[in-house]
Amino acid sequence: MNQDYIKPDNWSIIEEGFDVESVKSSESLFSIGNGAMGQRANFEENYSGETFQGSYIAGIYYPDKTKVGWWKNGYPEYFAKVLNAPNWIGIEIEINGENLDLNTCSEVKNFRRELNMKEGWYHRSFEATLKNGTEISVNIRRFLSIILDEVGIINYEITPLNKDAKIIYKPYIDAGVTNEDANWEEKFWEPLDVKNSANEAFVTAQTFKTHFKVTTFMQNSILINGEKTSISPSNIDATTDKIQFSYEVVVGQGQKSSIQKTGGYTVSLNHTNTQTAAEKVIQTALAKGYDQMLQDQIDAWAKIWEMSDITIDGDVKAQQGIRFNIFQLNQTYLGKDSRLNIGPKGFTGEKYGGSTYWDTEAYCIPFYMATKDQEVARNLLTYRYNQLDKAIENAVKLGFTNGAALYPMVTMNGEECHNEWEITFEEIHRNGAIAFAIYNFYRYTGDYSYIPEKGLEVLIGIARFWHQRANFSTNLNQYVILGVTGPNEYENNVNNNFYTNYIAKWCLDYTYEQIQKVSLEYPSDHKRISEKVKISDSELQSWKKVADNMYFPFSEEHNVYLQQDGFLDKDLVRVADLDRSQRPINQKWSWDRILRSPYIKQADVLQCFYFFEDHFSKEELKNNFEFYESFTVHESSLSPCVHSIQAALLDKMDMAYTFYLRTSRLDLDDYNKEVEEGCHITSMAGTWMSIVEGFGGMRIKEDKLHFSPKIPKEWNGYSFKINFRNQILKVDITHEQTSFSIDGQKDLSIVVNGKAIVVLANKSVSVEVN
Amino acid sequence: MNQDYIKPDNWSIIEEGFDVESVKSSESLFSIGNGAMGQRANFEENYSGETFQGSYIAGIYYPDKTKVGWWKNGYPEYFAKVLNAPNWIGIEIEINGENLDLNTCSEVKNFRRELNMKEGWYHRSFEATLKNGTEISVNIRRFLSIILDEVGIINYEITPLNKDAKIIYKPYIDAGVTNEDANWEEKFWEPLDVKNSANEAFVTAQTFKTHFKVTTFMQNSILINGEKTSISPSNIDATTDKIQFSYEVVVGQGQKSSIQKTGGYTVSLNHTNTQTAAEKVIQTALAKGYDQMLQDQIDAWAKIWEMSDITIDGDVKAQQGIRFNIFQLNQTYLGKDSRLNIGPKGFTGEKYGGSTYWDTEAYCIPFYMATKDQEVARNLLTYRYNQLDKAIENAVKLGFTNGAALYPMVTMNGEECHNEWEITFEEIHRNGAIAFAIYNFYRYTGDYSYIPEKGLEVLIGIARFWHQRANFSTNLNQYVILGVTGPNEYENNVNNNFYTNYIAKWCLDYTYEQIQKVSLEYPSDHKRISEKVKISDSELQSWKKVADNMYFPFSEEHNVYLQQDGFLDKDLVRVADLDRSQRPINQKWSWDRILRSPYIKQADVLQCFYFFEDHFSKEELKNNFEFYESFTVHESSLSPCVHSIQAALLDKMDMAYTFYLRTSRLDLDDYNKEVEEGCHITSMAGTWMSIVEGFGGMRIKEDKLHFSPKIPKEWNGYSFKINFRNQILKVDITHEQTSFSIDGQKDLSIVVNGKAIVVLANKSVSVEVN
Repeated sequence: MNQDYIKPDNWSIIEEGFDVESVKSSESLFSIGNGAMGQRANFEENYSGETFQGSYIAGIYYPDKTKVGWWKNGYPEYFAKVLNAPNWIGIEIEINGENLDLNTCSEVKNFRRELNMKEGWYHRSFEATLKNGTEISVNIRRFLSIILDEVGIINYEITPLNKDAKIIYKPYIDAGVTNEDANWEEKFWEPLDVKNSANEAFVTAQTFKTHFKVTTFMQNSILINGEKTSISPSNIDATTDKIQFSYEVVVGQGQKSSIQKTGGYTVSLNHTNTQTAAEKVIQTALAKGYDQMLQDQIDAWAKIWEMSDITIDGDVKAQQGIRFNIFQLNQTYLGKDSRLNIGPKGFTGEKYGGSTYWDTEAYCIPFYMATKDQEVARNLLTYRYNQLDKAIENAVKLGFTNGAALYPMVTMNGEECHNEWEITFEEIHRNGAIAFAIYNFYRYTGDYSYIPEKGLEVLIGIARFWHQRANFSTNLNQYVILGVTGPNEYENNVNNNFYTNYIAKWCLDYTYEQIQKVSLEYPSDHKRISEKVKISDSELQSWKKVADNMYFPFSEEHNVYLQQDGFLDKDLVRVADLDRSQRPINQKWSWDRILRSPYIKQADVLQCFYFFEDHFSKEELKNNFEFYESFTVHESSLSPCVHSIQAALLDKMDMAYTFYLRTSRLDLDDYNKEVEEGCHITSMAGTWMSIVEGFGGMRIKEDKLHFSPKIPKEWNGYSFKINFRNQILKVDITHEQTSFSIDGQKDLSIVVNGKAIVVLANKSVSVEVN
Repeated sequence: MNQDYIKPDNWSIIEEGFDVESVKSSESLFSIGNGAMGQRANFEENYSGETFQGSYIAGIYYPDKTKVGWWKNGYPEYFAKVLNAPNWIGIEIEINGENLDLNTCSEVKNFRRELNMKEGWYHRSFEATLKNGTEISVNIRRFLSIILDEVGIINYEITPLNKDAKIIYKPYIDAGVTNEDANWEEKFWEPLDVKNSANEAFVTAQTFKTHFKVTTFMQNSILINGEKTSISPSNIDATTDKIQFSYEVVVGQGQKSSIQKTGGYTVSLNHTNTQTAAEKVIQTALAKGYDQMLQDQIDAWAKIWEMSDITIDGDVKAQQGIRFNIFQLNQTYLGKDSRLNIGPKGFTGEKYGGSTYWDTEAYCIPFYMATKDQEVARNLLTYRYNQLDKAIENAVKLGFTNGAALYPMVTMNGEECHNEWEITFEEIHRNGAIAFAIYNFYRYTGDYSYIPEKGLEVLIGIARFWHQRANFSTNLNQYVILGVTGPNEYENNVNNNFYTNYIAKWCLDYTYEQIQKVSLEYPSDHKRISEKVKISDSELQSWKKVADNMYFPFSEEHNVYLQQDGFLDKDLVRVADLDRSQRPINQKWSWDRILRSPYIKQADVLQCFYFFEDHFSKEELKNNFEFYESFTVHESSLSPCVHSIQAALLDKMDMAYTFYLRTSRLDLDDYNKEVEEGCHITSMAGTWMSIVEGFGGMRIKEDKLHFSPKIPKEWNGYSFKINFRNQILKVDITHEQTSFSIDGQKDLSIVVNGKAIVVLANKSVSVEVN
């Protein structure tokens, strides 16, 4: 953990001082994205020090050939890699004959990065003394337009400080890029065409195998003292996959010059002719001009913040943390396109591959439901509906029949691409979260239509999977689920993981109920689906039998549900009694030692209590929370948020606050010493939940918003907004009271600390803290 | 399974007819070896069809960089690969200007291979019509000398059948070879030097990383009508890693010519100057001459067979099977060198890598104890003693302390080189077999000296491992061993595998007893070891506590020990009720499905009953055998032999015979459709056990040989010999009686069917079948 790395600020992420050791970490933290594309905060100019280059386009992937030590039947042949896309940000800089490279300059001073989250831009500035003695001041601003989401703009400005300078700006596009995590060091891009005209250039390339065609483009303008010039390229270098222009300017000491580079991608997912599309989008951007584009960006982000901001008063680090989380979520996914999803690293890195994990359903959907239009969450659900056939195919591969569906652990296009048997084949609980999200969407939005339209088919595929995956134990006289890995990946191939068994039973029950409901209320949908999936009453009875007789391991002694069979046979040394030097255990211990230890990577039984809070008493929660928290090492980014929410519910506010900080500043403070690989995007939605559901105590029960507001003693107050069934409720919480207000013309009945109140339209109502 | 592939014959393995589809399988089956080196039955001449080239030198390996999909802490960086060594058998053949290649000939007739196991040579013959119309008859004999074990000889004879022929023999040595299973397609050999003089050539190369230096050599003579000529090379081609001579002869129709190629390896493991050594060994071989070398070979094999042959009367396939097994074991390991061990594929393939598995201790040692001098088994034990430090290092890597030793799953030099967590870290039962072999050696040979000299230190390291690896379960109030993989690899990461728990307890008890015994009877050894390993009485008491309170899963309902916790929760469909089309499950099912199924890859609980037969009643054996046999799919080569032995003991002779055939003809009939990868060498010792211990009922109890002879109804009789404490006992079994006779001057007391009898020196005694 490095608490001094990022300067505390309410609205910006700021780094001061140049340190070669933190370049890769900062490249992650200062990443920018607009939902359609994103990029790490790589330098535009050459940099010979350690760097991790990354620019990513949503929906563009490469099925890299799987790499395994020992092949197991059922492994997928390909692993969908998040693709490092052609570089369009590059600008080589030559000053008085010397190439600018921060790694080789004589001196770098006043280096500063700022990611302005409020306005959605990234700025970098520094003063450098080159080996040739020229001192320069450099200011670079870069943003990816939310409005024109195929376009990014860089304004790269240089001022010579101690002498006149001949500056050559050499902007380029380079499709000769590779992935750091390529399995076989292959190239993923095949160059097709390089074109240029005047100040514009276009490199068209396509991905091998998947044949996504992408035109990467740039348009350059040179400015002197802020005024556009008509300077045109003095030289153009082109190869099969790269093109570079040279613009020469000679400026006096203290005179500013800059290059404005407009670049980005047009992709065959959206255009038949990507080059024509690129030409068009450049024209649109040029017509607006840099200043208007920037203003549009500021306005667009203002609109996003208007709905999704959480304010925290009196705790800058907590404020900065939550905004960073909300900002990154919005940079990653804006919900416009049901072909897209929320990758675990978003646009900040390549690691893990794939764009879609159970994280989306278990952690991200609540955030998007509450801070966006309902359509956004519905798009995320539709994504899985569209991949149902592939999930059925995947289940067939593993020996299931009759339309049983097993959604993949990791995917881009619906095909499984993870290859570690204990996860790929056994972390089947993911199927449960996908069903839960359908339930959760209806619970939150009140919009049932998704279920008869699409959701029910998904539910039936999932229920069929659980029905077949469970087997009857004559020994226990109940149904069991053997050989699984639960959310806690520090156990593999266990029997009767409580979370998995519970959500399996729930899926069966819930699907059964939805079939009844659709049959009654949506008879034509019921008919259509019945004909398609051919479900019989005896099959339904057979589901019911499994659901009604599911086995759940329980300890009478500890009065807790057991994470899995045999958990109590472990050497139950609590985390508090474990030598600090042994942690994190995932770095200090061999895998077998982790597996047989009692230590939990992430909430597992407690994840079940989180999803199905209403199914258990508060006393049950308390017993289970206290038991399992004592063994949880939180070495998954997805863990602390659930513990924070439950600690708050159990009035353990100090603990809740500690977990909140851990989840919200996980990347900013680099808790796990790995931020250089990218940020933990999906867990950021958990951070949002730990404020809204944890401290705010928001729940949906019987079509109503419930709150039981609490506030950490470190804060003066905090506020958030909720889009609940198309009404925007603002919640302001201080130590004294909680105020609710609503935009619009409709009143809203809510329940606060168990008491029903009505929030009148355009009026604030306050409730004292009880 | 292909029952018609190999022609039945008492002493030879014979293939008739040329089939490109079986070339790779035959290359495995017709492999030759002499303990120091071995090679697949690759053609000498060029072959453009599918082939798997392999020539191997005992003790020479390459630490290939590990390949994994997902790295786990504790994985070894390197995997010791069995190295494909430089090719010395190659002889290109040009006939009337055309290259001989069986894949492109116009016709191949009368193709025949014979591996003469009695005399230790391999012969191949065929008639071919070349595209240029020349018809030739070819006879090739090849053997690797047992006496001069650095040398092999090829006699390659050609007779033109329909016209005169200009024949160019182009013998070569090629160090530019690769491994089929190289992880990263790297070369493993660095060429150092290529030399030649007259008819001799030498290519010296060394392995990368391990720097084993090897001189590969050849000496060639040309014969016409069986007479050596003085024909010398007409051309010599040399590169940095290959050298090739050309010898031209012109022969008339019907005239025989041949090349005698003497080749082989001299290695830095045995020589300071490998080239000088090569020159010397060529001289020795030439001085003897081909005929004498062949006669030496026949004599050497006669000596091996004299001691190790098993005869079976009335069942040629069974006879061929057991001799193939005994032959291969002797080709692989002759026990002269304690640096060597018994690789799972011997010299017949590369697969699995490493030379040493638990197979050696669990399956091979009994064969070598009974058919060789005691020194051979002692050398195998010493191999592990010499690697004790590495086993301790390995345990430290996994978090163990205080001299605990975990022997590797797979090794060449003592370092672990397997990398699959569920096996590498969890298949810890291997440690038990290594201790058991020490006990077994003493039980069989009566020679206790190995224990105070070396064995006790190994036992202590192993006992310390088990002591630390078990943990106390407050829940069960007993010690448990969590997270293991037992011999049955169709279960991973299970708790309380019966076999593992049992052998762990036994190791603790046995080591404890040996410490007491050495302390009383070998006080100076005890002092030396005590000072080295610093063992205290309280540590010993602590072992005792674990051993005395070990938990064993047991089912009251079925009256059997449970393979592991939770076994009874499975869907217990017996193999007999499983659709045939689903088998072998390791090819038909995904890994997770195999894991949660009740199907057993190899004897597991029964392996325990095999090792510790005396600890259990026959009724217990019967219950457990019948229960587990019904779930065992025998998809490991190590499984059928144990079932065969136990079936015989339980008077299930039909079953015992079926298992016997399966184990003895596993490769010859290619049961698993994989013999092209190489033969299953280590399980061949299990085949030997299934006759001697199974049908013969041989056991050692209280320093005496016991027998309870049985005979399959398919046989007229069978016989075997046993070297028991330096006395050679011959056992002849028919349906009517069993005869025992002994070589030498000393009587031997044995027990037959529970009755003590004395076999008088040089006299036969018969016992009627009861």
